[in-house]
Order: sequence, then C-alpha cells, then structure tokens
Amino acid sequence: MAHHVNFCVLFFATAVHLVQTVPRIVDLSYKQNRDSVTWPSNPSYNFTQLFRGYSETYKLWLENNHFAMPEHMGTHIDAPVHTVKGMWRTDQIPMENLYGAGVIINVKSKAATNPDYRVTVDDLLMWEEKYGEMPRRAVAIMNSGWSSKYPNKTLVFGSPEPTDISTLHFPSWHEDAVTWLINKRQINAVGVDTPSTDYGMSSTYPCHTLLGKNSVVGIENVANLDNVPESGSTIYIPVLNIADGSGGPARVFATYDDEPNKTNAAAMVTCFTFYLYILAAVLVCYVM
Amino acid sequence: MAHHVNFCVLFFATAVHLVQTVPRIVDLSYKQNRDSVTWPSNPSYNFTQLFRGYSETYKLWLENNHFAMPEHMGTHIDAPVHTVKGMWRTDQIPMENLYGAGVIINVKSKAATNPDYRVTVDDLLMWEEKYGEMPRRAVAIMNSGWSSKYPNKTLVFGSPEPTDISTLHFPSWHEDAVTWLINKRQINAVGVDTPSTDYGMSSTYPCHTLLGKNSVVGIENVANLDNVPESGSTIYIPVLNIADGSGGPARVFATYDDEPNKTNAAAMVTCFTFYLYILAAVLVCYVM
Repeated sequence: MAHHVNFCVLFFATAVHLVQTVPRIVDLSYKQNRDSVTWPSNPSYNFTQLFRGYSETYKLWLENNHFAMPEHMGTHIDAPVHTVKGMWRTDQIPMENLYGAGVIINVKSKAATNPDYRVTVDDLLMWEEKYGEMPRRAVAIMNSGWSSKYPNKTLVFGSPEPTDISTLHFPSWHEDAVTWLINKRQINAVGVDTPSTDYGMSSTYPCHTLLGKNSVVGIENVANLDNVPESGSTIYIPVLNIADGSGGPARVFATYDDEPNKTNAAAMVTCFTFYLYILAAVLVCYVM
Repeated sequence: MAHHVNFCVLFFATAVHLVQTVPRIVDLSYKQNRDSVTWPSNPSYNFTQLFRGYSETYKLWLENNHFAMPEHMGTHIDAPVHTVKGMWRTDQIPMENLYGAGVIINVKSKAATNPDYRVTVDDLLMWEEKYGEMPRRAVAIMNSGWSSKYPNKTLVFGSPEPTDISTLHFPSWHEDAVTWLINKRQINAVGVDTPSTDYGMSSTYPCHTLLGKNSVVGIENVANLDNVPESGSTIYIPVLNIADGSGGPARVFATYDDEPNKTNAAAMVTCFTFYLYILAAVLVCYVM
C-alpha cells in the first residue's frame, strides 16, 4: 500500500510541475519605418532625428527622435468606430477586449492558389475538429502566408497598381465566418496577415461593418504567425492609446507554454493514471 | 475508505481549479493626447483628422486620423541607446526584455513629504522581506503616488517653470538601488511614475547611464500603479517598434491572478490536506 501512495505522490507532483511551465513570447508585429504598409490613400511614415550625438547640455550621449504616421499603418487595429458611427474609439476599448485565446486559422495552401480566398465557416469548423471548441472572447487571426510578401506593396496588395483600390487581390475573412465567430463564439478580435479584414476585391466591406457594429476589434498586417501554435496561445493587442482615435499601431504579441499540446496531453495522462491509482488503492483496501 | 477517496478526489479537483485561476489585466498607460507629458525641450503631440463622416467612396461611415509625437512622451520607454552610444535601439530590444515579474516599490509616503526622494537599496530589501527574493529578469517600478499629478506639468515636474530643467523636483531611483537591481537581481526593466529614471534635481543622470550600459529598459510616466499588486503580477512593456528608435510610446500593462497570495495560500493548504488524507488512507489500510 505504501508503494501505491508513493506513486500517487509522485504523479501529483508531476502534474503540478506540468501545469507550471514557463511561457514563451512571440512578436507578431512589423517594425515601423518608411516601408510600413498602409491603405493606398493614407499619408506615409515620417521619422526625424531630433538629436543624435554627444550632448553638451546633458554631458552624455543622446539619441532622440520624432515620428509621424497614420493610425492605420503597419501592424495596427481598427477600432469599432473606424467604419461604424458611434462605436468605441481607440481609448474607449476596454483592456479586456485587447487580448484573448489565440486561434490561428491556417489557409496558406488555399491562399497560395487563390489570392481572393476568404476564410469560411468550414475553415473554423476544421480548426475546432482539430483543437476543440474555441474559448469565448478569443482572438482569431487568419494565417494566409501573406507575411512573406510584406512590405512589398505590389505583392501585399496583389496589384501592379496598388493605388487603384479596384485592382487589389489579397485574402481575408468571409462575412459568414465573421458572423459565426460573433454569434457562436463571442469573439473579442478578428485579425489578418493582409492589409484588411475584407478581401482585396471587396467594394462593400461587410466584415468591417460586422466587426464595428458588434464592438469587435480588427487587427491588420499581423506578422510572424508561423511562429505561434494554432491553438494554446494568448494573443495581446496592446494598441497605442490614441485619444479620440479610430485605431492605432499595436505591438501585437503572443505568449504560450512551450509545447502546450504535448504538456496538456501529458497532464491528462498523469491525472488519469493518478485516478487509476486511487481506484486501485480503494480495491486493495476492500480486498484486505 | 470510499469516503476518504471521495475527499481525495474533491481536494485534488479543488487544487487544480485554484492553480488555473483566470488572470486579470490592468492598463498601466496614459492616453496619448495634446496634454501628454514629455521632456520640456521636446515638440508637442499633434493629432489630425484625415476623415470623419459618411464616405461616398466607401459607402459607409469612416473615421481616420494621423498623429505625430516625440518618442519620449506619455507612458514610454528609453531604449538603452537613448543615453549610451552603441547600445540597443528600440527595434533591437528582444521581446524577452520587454516583460517580467512585476515588482512595485511603494514609496508614496516618503515622496509625499520629499519630492526629491530617491528609491534606496533599503526600499528594495524591505520589499524582499515582505514578498521574498525578486525573480530574475523582473520589471521593477517605483510607485511614488505621482500619477495623481499627471498631466499637470507644473505638478508633475514639481516646478513653476518646468521648461527650466534646473528647477525640477520629482522622485525617482537612486543609482545605488539601480546598481543593486542590475548586479544582484539581473533586472530586465526599471520604471517610474514620474518623467525620468533620474530624479528631478539630477544634472548627471547616473541611472540613465547605468540602465543604458547594462541593456536595461527604462520606463517613464507609468500610470495606475495602485491597481496592481506589489508582487505577483507580470508586467509587459509592448513598445511601438520604431525602426532606428531611441525609445517609444508603450501600452504598458500588467496581468495577475485574482488575489494571488490568497490563492497560493489556499492551494498550499489544499495540497497539505490532500497529503494528510493520503497518509490517513495508508494508516486505515494498515489497521485493516
């Protein structure tokens, strides 16, 4: 019996250890510079050195710069008010709406053959088949493989004339999938690794309207999605808190436990084995 | 015996539940607007509406703005290169250096009677006496109570003439405390709820130099520190990734498990009780 108890203690200790894995952090944002991608009609990025050199005033080395940019540039968010009157401006979005469980929808193979691809409800159901039902208040982001094209504007916008918005070809979300995420899974934020939550060919922007009307944050030009697991991460969207803003640049990042699926599976096996040992102990006691 | 086993299962389930508490999120940043505090010699914030109204082009409501600002304004970081030549620029700081265990050093009562107060090694030792040794790679932030003065420049800079940098009075870190954090605790980032990691009266900026030389991120004008526990949080410093930058605005925030100390204590009691039950089960078996 003492043998059984030792095993129980060992397994319990292992289970606690597995739950306490150290998280990893992954940057999902592009650098801001003169190449940063923005919607064709927007002004460009500006960076000015205010001082760079030895400062006689402060008696030390000094670097100090100034920058200017449109809110919707590089890795950034759309506040709900961006396309729907009266909804949240940037500084009205609660912190609780700026993070959630990471749900990465991988449509790279589909987008590789069809630059006008839109994520469908079926893509979401396939994700759930693999990883289980999405947690509520998640952050769902399309990984179309478009980051390999960033920041080349001709490639990112899929057009030799990216200033003509009737010629754009890049993938994004289908409005039915966005509706499903809102109604069935109470989604917190919906993102893309392309320049818009509506696909390049759209002229009616139904996803923007759906997201705005339902107070869901949009995230555009997300980087580095291959380096975060499709399930099991937490994604943060810490947007610059621009008063009266319609969006703003965000240093989007993910945290996750190293090999979370393996860890969860191992923890489950441990717990199950533990319960079996308890059961065995009961039986032994009754037999005795 | 079945009774004992039921109790064991119940306690195990409770322990797992306690370990899996949902984290809270707290914003530690000020909004960016025309009142944002910056060093007296810096240019001011600028916000321009590019469009606000019904768009005939897109056939929907549209809000879109442009902003311009110095890097070192509002809640922001100093990259190591800000005052030490050749060190990390903003876009060279690894993500691993932009977060860590939150260590809040509360010196509100001292700063209330002495606006020139500097956090000492004793303040750090007092924190450790209360909460245990600091984790490595932590984010240590002084809470001087200065946020109640933000963004009133006369009050924040403690001077009727805040443009004259020889007249400033606000608290910050003593260089001995910063040296201790670097050498003894491998600190990741050092922050203040005032405009500088050197106190207002400084004319030699030793803390800036120490932080820069040792690749430690500085954080200035941190907000809302009363709403985060002094120990037990994780603080993130997601700075806007400005290429070639000397710092930049950051949406600093903290996450923590609700009542972590209470939860840990409860979990420990649960585990201990659980072990006692196992022990009791063994004894009962031997007696039987």
